Amino acid sequence: MADKAQIQEAIKAQGEVVRRLKAEKASKDQIDEEVAKLLQLKAQLGGEDGKHVFVLKTAKGTRDYNPKQMAIREKVFNTIIGCFKRHGAETIDTPVFELKETLTGKYGEDSKLIYDLKDQGGELLSLRYDLTVPFARYLAMNKITNIKRYHIAKVYRRDNPAMTRGRYREFYQCDFDIAGQYDPMIPDAECLKIVYEILSELDLGDFRIKVNDRRILDGMFAMCGVPDEKFRTICSTVDKLDKASWEDVKNEMVKEKGLSEGVADQIGEYVSMQGGMDLAERLLQDPKLSQSKQACAGLADMKQLFSYLQLFQVTDKVLFDLSLARGLDYYTGVIYEAVLSQMIQAPVVAKQNGALPGDEASVSVGSVAGGGRYDGLVGMFDPKGKKVPCVGVSIGIERIFSIMEQKAELLAEKVRTTETQVLVASAQKNLLEERLKLTTELWNAGIKAEVLYKKNPKLLTQLQHCEETGIPLVAILGEQELKDGVVKLRKVASREEVDVPREELVEELKRRTSKLP
Amino acid sequence: MADKAQIQEAIKAQGEVVRRLKAEKASKDQIDEEVAKLLQLKAQLGGEDGKHVFVLKTAKGTRDYNPKQMAIREKVFNTIIGCFKRHGAETIDTPVFELKETLTGKYGEDSKLIYDLKDQGGELLSLRYDLTVPFARYLAMNKITNIKRYHIAKVYRRDNPAMTRGRYREFYQCDFDIAGQYDPMIPDAECLKIVYEILSELDLGDFRIKVNDRRILDGMFAMCGVPDEKFRTICSTVDKLDKASWEDVKNEMVKEKGLSEGVADQIGEYVSMQGGMDLAERLLQDPKLSQSKQACAGLADMKQLFSYLQLFQVTDKVLFDLSLARGLDYYTGVIYEAVLSQMIQAPVVAKQNGALPGDEASVSVGSVAGGGRYDGLVGMFDPKGKKVPCVGVSIGIERIFSIMEQKAELLAEKVRTTETQVLVASAQKNLLEERLKLTTELWNAGIKAEVLYKKNPKLLTQLQHCEETGIPLVAILGEQELKDGVVKLRKVASREEVDVPREELVEELKRRTSKLP
Repeated sequence: MADKAQIQEAIKAQGEVVRRLKAEKASKDQIDEEVAKLLQLKAQLGGEDGKHVFVLKTAKGTRDYNPKQMAIREKVFNTIIGCFKRHGAETIDTPVFELKETLTGKYGEDSKLIYDLKDQGGELLSLRYDLTVPFARYLAMNKITNIKRYHIAKVYRRDNPAMTRGRYREFYQCDFDIAGQYDPMIPDAECLKIVYEILSELDLGDFRIKVNDRRILDGMFAMCGVPDEKFRTICSTVDKLDKASWEDVKNEMVKEKGLSEGVADQIGEYVSMQGGMDLAERLLQDPKLSQSKQACAGLADMKQLFSYLQLFQVTDKVLFDLSLARGLDYYTGVIYEAVLSQMIQAPVVAKQNGALPGDEASVSVGSVAGGGRYDGLVGMFDPKGKKVPCVGVSIGIERIFSIMEQKAELLAEKVRTTETQVLVASAQKNLLEERLKLTTELWNAGIKAEVLYKKNPKLLTQLQHCEETGIPLVAILGEQELKDGVVKLRKVASREEVDVPREELVEELKRRTSKLP
Repeated sequence: MADKAQIQEAIKAQGEVVRRLKAEKASKDQIDEEVAKLLQLKAQLGGEDGKHVFVLKTAKGTRDYNPKQMAIREKVFNTIIGCFKRHGAETIDTPVFELKETLTGKYGEDSKLIYDLKDQGGELLSLRYDLTVPFARYLAMNKITNIKRYHIAKVYRRDNPAMTRGRYREFYQCDFDIAGQYDPMIPDAECLKIVYEILSELDLGDFRIKVNDRRILDGMFAMCGVPDEKFRTICSTVDKLDKASWEDVKNEMVKEKGLSEGVADQIGEYVSMQGGMDLAERLLQDPKLSQSKQACAGLADMKQLFSYLQLFQVTDKVLFDLSLARGLDYYTGVIYEAVLSQMIQAPVVAKQNGALPGDEASVSVGSVAGGGRYDGLVGMFDPKGKKVPCVGVSIGIERIFSIMEQKAELLAEKVRTTETQVLVASAQKNLLEERLKLTTELWNAGIKAEVLYKKNPKLLTQLQHCEETGIPLVAILGEQELKDGVVKLRKVASREEVDVPREELVEELKRRTSKLP
């Protein structure tokens, strides 16, 4: 550790940085970050008693999960993994960091949000930004040409966190992808079926899945007169339509990205269109769009997609929406995004994070799933450029967690964080050994059992532990029970008690707990 | 991206670095790292056709898990989590990175192995090195004074990887810890019970759990004449006894750490001792040790521990071993480590990684679990130094994976990577729509079903897919079946076929698949 004089020097310098930013009226966010650094430095000097004082927090934009949050998370994961497995998916895992150059050039304007590791000698590494690029690297590296896989893992983005809305710098992605050369639109339709099944099963209220196609967007841009090299950046601008008004989006197109007003207005007409298979059919006759080969290919596939979606019984929630653009560079065909219809009240989360309830806290959670086709990404990695067509979907699990947590809080649901079936207890002193012996018998028989780590706990303390943690049964030992070769089995909820012969206890517990929810 | 001239400049400089290291006869490892950097730079220049050529690899010391490895991993995790839940544990999660200073000063000589994140503005962050320090930070931050929790997550160490032996730079830890003020040695004994249960259930062959106590070691060091300030560093040296001979260890004590030969020899006598409760009793009478208060407290607790281990029925595998020291700084009481008895042959893994089979590949995997009591760590984080006593164990899951993978390979076990119960197939053309319709019925009823993404697949292709991936049943549709309102259900293994009425298919599948393993 640096010596005191060095630290004091650093504190002085950092104090300057903060003062300068405040004078320059820099963003609150920027100032906060530099203040945090200053506090860390001050903490190194230690408290008055010379003890080192730690800044007790998690890194900005990240959070711990407590046991209750983990119980909810486990439930959500089980539903999602259950769906992926029902559709015959395998799973893989990749490292949390990749060679930096593996990620370079894949995320368009968002590449600046990638976390890099410090160069401590050796390779230059970055934390993964999503699971899709590592998946493509995995396929190219192992020369895999077809696979249906899911991958659930954390990804990292140096974004501006909005934690009340479930936006973090470290967050889970739940990805399902199908790689391989298949007949058109069948895997694409299955991805949408999966989104439909998961959102229905999680019971998050009504939702819509918007679909579009990059080829339709590109054809539309071309026919409206957008220069080729501006397709991707205009795409990013269109993508803001879910949060911004058309006026703002048009403004960005004209003032920042240099389109003429006439071109922007033509785009404006198209991106207001929504419909189903009928819209695809109508646009195939559109005088402008029908002149673009790309657009026609996209529209024909859109029709095909809707016909499969009918067979999959999901068209009631799917909407062909020309304003859907998606931010990422690598999409080449169908794209989609699921949004919840309800507005979410977020007082609970806001309170937890010490924020004031207000505008920010009660907004729509927005997109909860998104994806699309990316036929070129694997080829970027392959030395010979060999392509592997891919389509996939990513479930926005953090937003779903936020909603589930709020629901549990609003309904004052009691969430159990352990699965313990029985507490081994005693009403008298000096029975620790007997309690441990019985607990051992239960563990060895596969029963989920607990025992308090005290020599002589009071019975009341033991019963309270059951009520607090939701343990349904207590096995009580006393001198008399030991003499009679029985155990007093008590139901915590009803206080019913019955003596069970010791040698039948395991069977009786198995019988009773198999009926528990 | 940098321009061509800049890259060529960098390549020249890096080439110099490599040449210099080779001339200096630097370690192979160091040279390899710099060569890797050089190759990355060269790759940026692109191939002959101007296409950017990627280095297709994972970061040094890390690996992808393919579906087969994931299937094995899932099985191992289920066993371990099952055990943790049987003992009433909750689970938490913490971010993959912490404020750098949270980790500083916790790991003794190993702190140099911590991965830092690049300073991109904002906080200084490091990847977690273990799950114990983040756990202590979590307890102090949330003022939690008792909890029994498990945490399964990846940790990061810039160590020299030995991947054939299951040693990686990114690897899983499976931690179980009990925090709280309880009667002595009960939670400690439960940790050992858990190690015993997990290693037995995973069926990894015979094993031993060595136990010792930091207080016994410190008392022993004091009585042998080691100066106080050398306790921790001598502890690190003693810890090498599982891999190095006494001569080497003594050499390090005398030549590197400055002990006199007489002191080292006295230590040598003690660290050769092994036994059970009897050894603890004998050492309580030892003329030297019995003069150390610390040692006596440790020995009395060791006796108590063994008495609980008897009740837990695990003493057959537990060994009180005075040479056990454990590397980490934060232990304050009981420490333990589990080792497998068998030597592991690792030809398969060695082959996979392109290494030659040889000495390195066929060595013992060594320790597969370890832990101990750390009563001071939470207090380091608490502003007022308030202590929360903790004891815990970490399962060395990567080594266990390596063994399970080798076992599966040696036994030529067929590992299924999906759970699909039935493939929906057809023997005739133009039945894609009918196949999709039936698959939808099955998915909606919760049956795990697949369908090939082809308009007109051959029946043989469909049956081969079942055999390759282990799908046990095929539901075959044809013109005749559709007319008769039936589905032909075929068992892949026996080729038995039977017509099932369409409306009874779901029930029939549920009946059949509930009997599957």
